[in-house]
Amino acid sequence: MEKVFRDPIHDYIYVQDQVILDLINTKEFQRLRRIHQLGTTSFVFHGAEHTRFSHSLGCYEVARRITDSFERNYPTKTPGDGLWNNDERLVTLCAALLHDIGHGAYSHTFEHIFHTDHELITTQIITDPQTEVNQALRQISPDFPTKVASVISHDYPNPQVVQLISSQIDADRMDYLLRDSYYTGTNYGNFDLTRILRVMRPYKNGIAFQISGIHAVEDFIVSRFQMYVQVYFHSVSRSMEVILGHLLQRANELYQSERANNHQRAFQPHYLMPFFDENFSLTDYLKLDDGVLNTYFLQWEDDEDPILSDLSARFLGRIPLKSAQIKEPTRSLLPELRKLVTEAGFDVEYYTAENDSYDLPYDAYDPTSKKPRTQIELMQADGSLVELSTVSDLVKSITGKISSDERFYFPKEMLVNTDNNLFSDTFAAFQAHIKNNLIR
Amino acid sequence: MEKVFRDPIHDYIYVQDQVILDLINTKEFQRLRRIHQLGTTSFVFHGAEHTRFSHSLGCYEVARRITDSFERNYPTKTPGDGLWNNDERLVTLCAALLHDIGHGAYSHTFEHIFHTDHELITTQIITDPQTEVNQALRQISPDFPTKVASVISHDYPNPQVVQLISSQIDADRMDYLLRDSYYTGTNYGNFDLTRILRVMRPYKNGIAFQISGIHAVEDFIVSRFQMYVQVYFHSVSRSMEVILGHLLQRANELYQSERANNHQRAFQPHYLMPFFDENFSLTDYLKLDDGVLNTYFLQWEDDEDPILSDLSARFLGRIPLKSAQIKEPTRSLLPELRKLVTEAGFDVEYYTAENDSYDLPYDAYDPTSKKPRTQIELMQADGSLVELSTVSDLVKSITGKISSDERFYFPKEMLVNTDNNLFSDTFAAFQAHIKNNLIR
Amino acid sequence: MEKVFRDPIHDYIYVQDQVILDLINTKEFQRLRRIHQLGTTSFVFHGAEHTRFSHSLGCYEVARRITDSFERNYPTKTPGDGLWNNDERLVTLCAALLHDIGHGAYSHTFEHIFHTDHELITTQIITDPQTEVNQALRQISPDFPTKVASVISHDYPNPQVVQLISSQIDADRMDYLLRDSYYTGTNYGNFDLTRILRVMRPYKNGIAFQISGIHAVEDFIVSRFQMYVQVYFHSVSRSMEVILGHLLQRANELYQSERANNHQRAFQPHYLMPFFDENFSLTDYLKLDDGVLNTYFLQWEDDEDPILSDLSARFLGRIPLKSAQIKEPTRSLLPELRKLVTEAGFDVEYYTAENDSYDLPYDAYDPTSKKPRTQIELMQADGSLVELSTVSDLVKSITGKISSDERFYFPKEMLVNTDNNLFSDTFAAFQAHIKNNLIR
Amino acid sequence: MEKVFRDPIHDYIYVQDQVILDLINTKEFQRLRRIHQLGTTSFVFHGAEHTRFSHSLGCYEVARRITDSFERNYPTKTPGDGLWNNDERLVTLCAALLHDIGHGAYSHTFEHIFHTDHELITTQIITDPQTEVNQALRQISPDFPTKVASVISHDYPNPQVVQLISSQIDADRMDYLLRDSYYTGTNYGNFDLTRILRVMRPYKNGIAFQISGIHAVEDFIVSRFQMYVQVYFHSVSRSMEVILGHLLQRANELYQSERANNHQRAFQPHYLMPFFDENFSLTDYLKLDDGVLNTYFLQWEDDEDPILSDLSARFLGRIPLKSAQIKEPTRSLLPELRKLVTEAGFDVEYYTAENDSYDLPYDAYDPTSKKPRTQIELMQADGSLVELSTVSDLVKSITGKISSDERFYFPKEMLVNTDNNLFSDTFAAFQAHIKNNLIR
Repeated sequence: MEKVFRDPIHDYIYVQDQVILDLINTKEFQRLRRIHQLGTTSFVFHGAEHTRFSHSLGCYEVARRITDSFERNYPTKTPGDGLWNNDERLVTLCAALLHDIGHGAYSHTFEHIFHTDHELITTQIITDPQTEVNQALRQISPDFPTKVASVISHDYPNPQVVQLISSQIDADRMDYLLRDSYYTGTNYGNFDLTRILRVMRPYKNGIAFQISGIHAVEDFIVSRFQMYVQVYFHSVSRSMEVILGHLLQRANELYQSERANNHQRAFQPHYLMPFFDENFSLTDYLKLDDGVLNTYFLQWEDDEDPILSDLSARFLGRIPLKSAQIKEPTRSLLPELRKLVTEAGFDVEYYTAENDSYDLPYDAYDPTSKKPRTQIELMQADGSLVELSTVSDLVKSITGKISSDERFYFPKEMLVNTDNNLFSDTFAAFQAHIKNNLIR
Repeated sequence: MEKVFRDPIHDYIYVQDQVILDLINTKEFQRLRRIHQLGTTSFVFHGAEHTRFSHSLGCYEVARRITDSFERNYPTKTPGDGLWNNDERLVTLCAALLHDIGHGAYSHTFEHIFHTDHELITTQIITDPQTEVNQALRQISPDFPTKVASVISHDYPNPQVVQLISSQIDADRMDYLLRDSYYTGTNYGNFDLTRILRVMRPYKNGIAFQISGIHAVEDFIVSRFQMYVQVYFHSVSRSMEVILGHLLQRANELYQSERANNHQRAFQPHYLMPFFDENFSLTDYLKLDDGVLNTYFLQWEDDEDPILSDLSARFLGRIPLKSAQIKEPTRSLLPELRKLVTEAGFDVEYYTAENDSYDLPYDAYDPTSKKPRTQIELMQADGSLVELSTVSDLVKSITGKISSDERFYFPKEMLVNTDNNLFSDTFAAFQAHIKNNLIR
Repeated sequence: MEKVFRDPIHDYIYVQDQVILDLINTKEFQRLRRIHQLGTTSFVFHGAEHTRFSHSLGCYEVARRITDSFERNYPTKTPGDGLWNNDERLVTLCAALLHDIGHGAYSHTFEHIFHTDHELITTQIITDPQTEVNQALRQISPDFPTKVASVISHDYPNPQVVQLISSQIDADRMDYLLRDSYYTGTNYGNFDLTRILRVMRPYKNGIAFQISGIHAVEDFIVSRFQMYVQVYFHSVSRSMEVILGHLLQRANELYQSERANNHQRAFQPHYLMPFFDENFSLTDYLKLDDGVLNTYFLQWEDDEDPILSDLSARFLGRIPLKSAQIKEPTRSLLPELRKLVTEAGFDVEYYTAENDSYDLPYDAYDPTSKKPRTQIELMQADGSLVELSTVSDLVKSITGKISSDERFYFPKEMLVNTDNNLFSDTFAAFQAHIKNNLIR
Repeated sequence: MEKVFRDPIHDYIYVQDQVILDLINTKEFQRLRRIHQLGTTSFVFHGAEHTRFSHSLGCYEVARRITDSFERNYPTKTPGDGLWNNDERLVTLCAALLHDIGHGAYSHTFEHIFHTDHELITTQIITDPQTEVNQALRQISPDFPTKVASVISHDYPNPQVVQLISSQIDADRMDYLLRDSYYTGTNYGNFDLTRILRVMRPYKNGIAFQISGIHAVEDFIVSRFQMYVQVYFHSVSRSMEVILGHLLQRANELYQSERANNHQRAFQPHYLMPFFDENFSLTDYLKLDDGVLNTYFLQWEDDEDPILSDLSARFLGRIPLKSAQIKEPTRSLLPELRKLVTEAGFDVEYYTAENDSYDLPYDAYDPTSKKPRTQIELMQADGSLVELSTVSDLVKSITGKISSDERFYFPKEMLVNTDNNLFSDTFAAFQAHIKNNLIR
């Protein structure tokens, strides 16, 4: 059997194993069609409406191409020779396909409010005998689900398989950079996938890249850095995330206080209740998607609570908060700014926020780090390895440097023209502290 | 003011008028972010997850470029000279932006079941003083909403404006062909937009194309034909539409019978009730989107009614019906096929369907037609006009011919291997009638 | 060994056999770098400056992908089963790479004037033991050159191999459509190569296409038709070809008359002399390329013969003749037009021409035809074949219809404003016969 | 009048002024069709066969878009306000179109051997009253040619105009990065032209960029750096340049010695003689192009001098020298290596070379530099300027650092297997010094 899916990024995605097709056809995997890949980013880049379903297929396809290349060019001859053992193919492909299966609606924000953990859920979906995913995997062997799960949790013994799914240049990142570039309509995330696949190779401790491909690897790192700065850190999509978080938090608080008061609302957000109650099952989790949350926001637009109603309308109607960058010396001004926002009639808990986006574009291995990275190794003509940043000035310039952007969010009403207004003085005082998108 | 939106199709979309920005920021327009452009097509072409929001912006941008070109190259000098009066610019742009504002969740299927009419709703959203859209339009003048609505309903006096928004080669079609091609990852819908915009020009009775651009126009018609055959008519996305329709119909019937019995369900589909009751307001309509319907389907998966539950699971889990093409001589076999499906234990009302997709790729003007088309006129060097199909063999070959594909849908269970099965004889009898995707 | 070439059309071209690399490195193949793929077309589409070298590599790569797919998916099991015998791989790839090796400078025009034959030369280059190409091929076996040549001359016994290199949908056409589209910057020649390669398959009498790919095949035929009409037939590049032909013809005539008179010129066009003498060797032929001819044109710009000098300047300086379309009823006007051109002081032999471009976009097999075509066969689910035009309206509309464009070329001076001019009456009389690019 | 040229990079190039069309139609400009943009690069990236003609049109088009944007968005109101004076439009466009008009055949190598200077020639072509270019420019005004020339020589008083044509981010670089990327088939040179054009703006001392576009500017600098490292510095195309240089040098030396001996060759390279004589006119210079030189190389292949003949065959047949990188500590080994090459029978003057490629990716203004650069200025919201490298880590990492690659070139024969060979010991001794493409 071979089945193909038309894909804008990889042209075609080739499914060559029954288990992969079965996994795609599970209800847990189909559910990913209802969860956007980039959360609130489409509020800024309107084209980026793609879902985790597309990305998961794409990640699988990149992994498939890599294992195909490894099988053709680097087949193992004797155990321990550091080459590719094609018995690892299926576990690699399943892990690639399922690596994001535990993601939920508006993932990161939701996790923050309700203390869920998508990586844990991924493991549960794979290993819980009730799921269709687990049933499909068990067709291979009884311990196959556990093996797949251990790849995703980095516990699988073969480092080649683990690094293919999760490292600083893995199937996941390769697909999402190309895909997010395509759908946002920016070009920053483009890199030469064909060339990278061609120079990738297995070695004893994982994956290396022939040094002839150094510039393609370098370009990948730089492209990813640029996507973070340009797209993933965008201040307006973060603003929408802030509103989303506050909205869920407000709903939760209302629920808790009403429960304390034995108050019962007309329309309860049925599928959210287990999360308010901090007592949810996997089945509960799998009922949630972006559309379900949006449906509750539509209900809350008409809620009696003015903050819940207003935040819902802001989220659905894309009415972002404004922001200004925080630099260390001006952090001390935040209490004053919050005070002015309060004076203007806003509840600062729901209408202001500090928000920081950060990413480590690349790092060499550092055993003292809390989260040591698998560094990118280049293989020279004589087989010796050299770490990427030691031979690339461009990469060196961003190695080990956390790139971040810290911002203070506040209602755009604070920036209105100050004439003839009840809060003229407040607004003017506030505006005196904002210049060139900076707090001063 | 000028504001830009990054767009994968047009690179950037330029907003140069406050009213356009205000319209985009209305809650009625933002709602289009929650309605997919291609309904169930993304079940086949998984990349096609874009919404009517993106397409509406794109249609606006194409219209903006056309009016810009007309203003620069064909400004009217004396009334009635058949050239472009730039006073028409704003009404044109607003109509382009809003032409799809009345579309609802899973538009065509929903309309079919609940007898709504998205064109009527479009007019209501534009003219109802309660909407934010209407309020934004009224900033221009009190009668501006009515003018915009009359463009969309083809009643506007200037045929140039009407044809720009709605004709056989209009801003709407130009955007959706490019956009749907891009998101599906097929190339069939591509054509040379830049060249078409360059050869478009106003004339007394509407829009014409300089004959030097004939091949670009020809390519547009052929591309659109190919997209219909390849993408829009795809048998599997139509299968998902069939399931969707049956699902909504089942829910409606259950509701009607329960209402008759004074039975009250635990979880009512709140936002659908006005449609079950055939008594809905504009506000009710605007609460619906794809996510809301999907949320109800998630609830119905757990419903006590086995058909409602099963159809919901099939829709959410992408379990399509199979199909075979109906040709005239074999239509008479359908009763027999339905009988066999019944024997196998399926309710034919919900598990079979006849479904026909058809499109008229291009037609010359025919005053005797029920729905006469504005034909495509090419302007020769001496200013005389010639109709497209008279000078293009390719277009002539598809002119006036309705392209259609009629299919019989049935459960894939009917095609299982017939050995050792309770229904072996039934299945074998059924399968004897299906060959090469045809009923015989 | 595997060596790759970066290619804008196919991303990478993979060379996996030493003989292919050796062939590429021969001086006969490297010479193709100095011969443009599209002759005078770059005078109109300035981007189209690519050479036969790039196209030959591309044609090889398409053939390589096809044979790879055949080997993987349709390997023969028993002789005569109609599947793919991978022993044919190398002869196929060599034929694909070398199919154009006999092309010379400004091929078609040069052939017309000097009665050379690039197909015959191709055979000679492959079979002459003096060439590096022949020496490389003989490394495989003594009769290998003859086998390769017989594929190109359609005499090879296996029709699969022949059709892969030369048929209505072959590796040659697939590469040149994509490549010419890319370099001209038009999109008309684009089609879905990946899909066509996927549905191509061997059968007993040659190559067929699975019917599921019908629309990709249809799109290929339509794309090729559009490229002919839009690019290859362009009236201005044909005008430059007309000038080129007249230029070579003038030089030849001058040479013949001077030889008769024992006149010796200062600067003889050394490499052209064997062709003037109608007595050239393969070595002579291989010395010619576009740059050599242009070098002679540069010399002739300064020639004492005013016609040779003027035509050279027109060719190098891109000063095309104008043209008007000839329709049957107006052909009788040509003598009158030529008379007027003569009156205006031009030698009609060198400054006017009738020129006809024609192509047969597609044809079904017709045993009565002078040059019967291998028709395109689609394979249905049950293995039976059906000819393309019987199932595609689009293709049917252009099947068997020769597409042509016949034009009369003349100096643009004939179209100048007629006032106050020595030849006013002549010009006016001429211009009265030209309207909307037509003779009337 | 408006005339368009189809272009693969810019889609269409719009010519809106008669003088631009006249300039394109001059014989000096048409001659650029016969000079490749990237010299010997197409020996490595075979797709890169484009010429200076295409690039010159593209550079014009970028300049046209910039001036259009400046005219629309930043029109001057009062002299000295630092905004754009549209009287500068035509001089800007002409300078952009003509900036490379003085380039000759295989420009840089030719200049090196014959001490020509393409910048000086550019000025001559523009200002010499005999050229068609000068005649076209004089239609505007008698001093217009001098003005255009002064833009190219950086002497024009308005720094906005000068920087638009020549600075670290100018119309020239913007076109060639995109164009060379497209034709080589690499993606390294891509950047967001639309965005850069949108954030470019005039100010008092030249051109600045709104800080909102910082990442597009950053990406441009990084892209250019990557193109240098990946494409322009490629060791094999430099190898072909080395052969070309040695070939011209050998011909020159033979000519000088034969002149001293009153020896006359049968076939003199007519158009090269003035350069051998170091006494050439502008007319002589304009007769040369890539094809003319190649034609002489074809003649020299059959020359009696074995070195001239061999080098010609190597150049035409693409037989590059091999190379190894020189690092400071190993430079002292070069005499030993040259001695071994001599022992193997090669003339080291013609068969070895040291070759260094270097580029300064970006630099801030440094008044102490020999060639101070106009630094890239970003304009903040309050109108103040900030230099690029002070706000971009990526750019800072490559600022002021000359990127270079120094190599030793030698015949590939030196790397043959050393067994059973006359020169076995010599080859072995040589090979002992080369490892991983490095001299050691």
